[in-house]
Amino acid sequence: MSVLDALFQPTGVAVLGASNNPDKAGYYVVKNLRDMGYPGEIYPVNLRESQIQGLASYPNLVAIPGMCQLLVLIMPAEAIYSVMADLAARMEQQGDIKVIVCAASGFAELENEEGFRRQECLLETARHWGIRVVGPNCIGVIDQENKVNTTFVDNGLPLHAPTGEQAPGVPSTQELRPLGISLVSQSGSVAAMLLMLTASLPQPVMLRKFCSIGNMADVDFIDILEHYEQDEGTKVIGIYLEGYSQGRKLAETLGRITVTKPVVVLKVGRSEAGAKAAASHTGSLAGSYAVYEAALRQKGATLVHSMRELVYTLLAFACLPLPPGRNSFIMTQTGGMGIFATDETGKYPQINLANLTSEGEARLRSAMPPMATWGRAVGYADISVAASVKQHAAAVEIALNDAAIDNLVFLTVLPSFISQEELGIAWAHLLAPAHPSGKPVYMVILAGGYVKQVRRFLESQGLLTFEMPEDAVTALAHMLGYAEYRRGL
Amino acid sequence: MSVLDALFQPTGVAVLGASNNPDKAGYYVVKNLRDMGYPGEIYPVNLRESQIQGLASYPNLVAIPGMCQLLVLIMPAEAIYSVMADLAARMEQQGDIKVIVCAASGFAELENEEGFRRQECLLETARHWGIRVVGPNCIGVIDQENKVNTTFVDNGLPLHAPTGEQAPGVPSTQELRPLGISLVSQSGSVAAMLLMLTASLPQPVMLRKFCSIGNMADVDFIDILEHYEQDEGTKVIGIYLEGYSQGRKLAETLGRITVTKPVVVLKVGRSEAGAKAAASHTGSLAGSYAVYEAALRQKGATLVHSMRELVYTLLAFACLPLPPGRNSFIMTQTGGMGIFATDETGKYPQINLANLTSEGEARLRSAMPPMATWGRAVGYADISVAASVKQHAAAVEIALNDAAIDNLVFLTVLPSFISQEELGIAWAHLLAPAHPSGKPVYMVILAGGYVKQVRRFLESQGLLTFEMPEDAVTALAHMLGYAEYRRGL
Repeated sequence: MSVLDALFQPTGVAVLGASNNPDKAGYYVVKNLRDMGYPGEIYPVNLRESQIQGLASYPNLVAIPGMCQLLVLIMPAEAIYSVMADLAARMEQQGDIKVIVCAASGFAELENEEGFRRQECLLETARHWGIRVVGPNCIGVIDQENKVNTTFVDNGLPLHAPTGEQAPGVPSTQELRPLGISLVSQSGSVAAMLLMLTASLPQPVMLRKFCSIGNMADVDFIDILEHYEQDEGTKVIGIYLEGYSQGRKLAETLGRITVTKPVVVLKVGRSEAGAKAAASHTGSLAGSYAVYEAALRQKGATLVHSMRELVYTLLAFACLPLPPGRNSFIMTQTGGMGIFATDETGKYPQINLANLTSEGEARLRSAMPPMATWGRAVGYADISVAASVKQHAAAVEIALNDAAIDNLVFLTVLPSFISQEELGIAWAHLLAPAHPSGKPVYMVILAGGYVKQVRRFLESQGLLTFEMPEDAVTALAHMLGYAEYRRGL
Repeated sequence: MSVLDALFQPTGVAVLGASNNPDKAGYYVVKNLRDMGYPGEIYPVNLRESQIQGLASYPNLVAIPGMCQLLVLIMPAEAIYSVMADLAARMEQQGDIKVIVCAASGFAELENEEGFRRQECLLETARHWGIRVVGPNCIGVIDQENKVNTTFVDNGLPLHAPTGEQAPGVPSTQELRPLGISLVSQSGSVAAMLLMLTASLPQPVMLRKFCSIGNMADVDFIDILEHYEQDEGTKVIGIYLEGYSQGRKLAETLGRITVTKPVVVLKVGRSEAGAKAAASHTGSLAGSYAVYEAALRQKGATLVHSMRELVYTLLAFACLPLPPGRNSFIMTQTGGMGIFATDETGKYPQINLANLTSEGEARLRSAMPPMATWGRAVGYADISVAASVKQHAAAVEIALNDAAIDNLVFLTVLPSFISQEELGIAWAHLLAPAHPSGKPVYMVILAGGYVKQVRRFLESQGLLTFEMPEDAVTALAHMLGYAEYRRGL
């Protein structure tokens, strides 16, 4: 067991700066650890309080009675000197702390003398005692399996997976889907935002492992990526990257991981203004975006250009099978958005629009409404607004079973006269579990809150739905790019 | 009063194909007219039923007892011949019908002989009696002021504006904001989607006027745009465009309108595949995208590239003042998304990032938390995750009152320890009504459902909030582009 394992599966967690006041971040660290169901001991440390949220609290690190491997620092940065003195005292007596998550900010990212001095004090003590440091200026870790959560993010949802019996039928929004997505982020707020976004999907998603590494004073991208590489439950990895001094080593690590697991990267610093802003954040040089882009692409990483694209691309890799080939078909109940999706495919040379076989077209002819049209544009069929639930399902079935087609994008603006429940059941019957045809279906169900019921139902069955046509087409392009990379190895 | 006025303010509406069955589109046309609060007579026409949703129903057009200016056709297309015979009989006796909304599909868009024949029958009868036709293959019109709604879209919300006293404080989601946005769309499903999307915003928005023109057998873009041009309540116009044979006339009309009202256009057919798909839809040739683009830009129209961009750009024009100049500042509480937003500005040459005056920087210094940073990248300040509600408000106030700044993009990933209610009140106090500084603030409040409370509160005060950084930066770029066009006139 490596020292870093104590980050994701610690025996005992101390929270220095724990609070009873919901206006303080230190309140949420304790609350989230408990809400997550962390099975070990939680030791709040607070000078003035004897109890924190009903738990016994301790005035300093030395006073903690039991074994404690992980220390979360969420006090004001100026206290770092006395805290490190206490830490040294504890290590002399107990020698138990293995990892520090320094969630506090006010360190090297300030780019002033005092900030550097604080960070050096933290590192010096940690180095002396063989303790690894995550941060400073981060929000720490979440581990779904080991029920650890050191963040102070309140995304309005319980952070643990549901336990016990699940009610039949459409699940409640409170059930989180564990999909094997793990994330590492250089920005705490981006990491927090990703937690909020995944919790706000029609059927909320829980990340498997999550680490916000902030200033990377010690633990960095390579450490976390190697941990995710070893973790069997991690199926796909997401990275938010500002800049990293060991570019070559990062590329090598990614090259090794992408042989078996897709890695999706959101790299900022594309424009000159953005690069300067990045340098002012975690103190990292953003480096030339073009250089990063070329190196990451060469190593099989998938580059995305927004948080939305990051979320939907991670979901696609987690939920859909890798496509067997490039031939793609756009089947739509909505003319307008079908055309828009077709337009979007023009951006990606890896998408090859292809027609159904003549047998497939004959099947469409006998099953679709009379105003359905196809054959006028390559790889495109419009089953028309008149399509019933049965015809929605038949359209998907026909395209999936057509030998000429490897990928299906399906779009519908659900009319009010179609039952969302019936449609969900028909599609789930066809596609769950896990796309038996081996061909991915990119299901776009439009629009807004009106279609939440059917999206939630399908997602609760392990299927993926997209909010917008561009979300689906971009994910298709990324899946094709990665599949081709894998075949080329 | 022009004949077309009877489309948006008819005396009496007949619904041919009205139904008591919620699985039929004809059910929703009657329901929406009633839910909208249409003040005139509604005449359902149905062969078999004597009552439709509690209203007296008539077996055919001739049997309708009162004055009826608007006729909605939502029956199967093959019935068009007998319906036109009935129409002729009614016109001979009553001569009252002025406009037909043909919501049925199965006409020229089929591109077969039968489809053309049906459309010709419809047009011939209409022409003979001086009746204007909207569609076929459309979803008709909505008029918020005159309480008309011929669509069969159920977006899960009441479609009329709230009446009577409003409760103080945060309003319910049921209240729709009328913002003076009018839309014309060549696709019924895109139009329906836009209704669903605007109804799903944190504080739902109602379109002022809405027309889905489908096949444009008669009434076309020019007719509707001229109506919106004359309508004082229409402040901004949105267009979904596939293709239109009278390109020159469209450009001229837009050139006249954009002198006083912004027009935002989503044009599909950018790629070859998309153009072919468009041609197969409403039968229109998409034409060269580049030619459209150049012509529309020259006439001051704003081109957008997705439905999301269309929605947020329309909202920006409707809610924000036109910027007094190009100097823009990015103020962020989140390093990561602040950098991302800065990156995005690099795409738009019209955005000029500029620093605060030294007085402004001095004010920041005294008001912001110690870990706040600025001055390292032009036009960029990070007030840090430590910023309180008061500091969030002060940051906006300082930038807005700085003489060097014309536009402000503000981003925050709301931490759990900040009160959404307090923040909403502080900002509303500063910015409502209608941005008194005359400078637009692009407020990005991240992320997902967690921040709905503060977004809903601000929007209920007439302010605009964005979901994602790219939504805000793109809207800023479009506002700057249009403001420059207007200054150049």
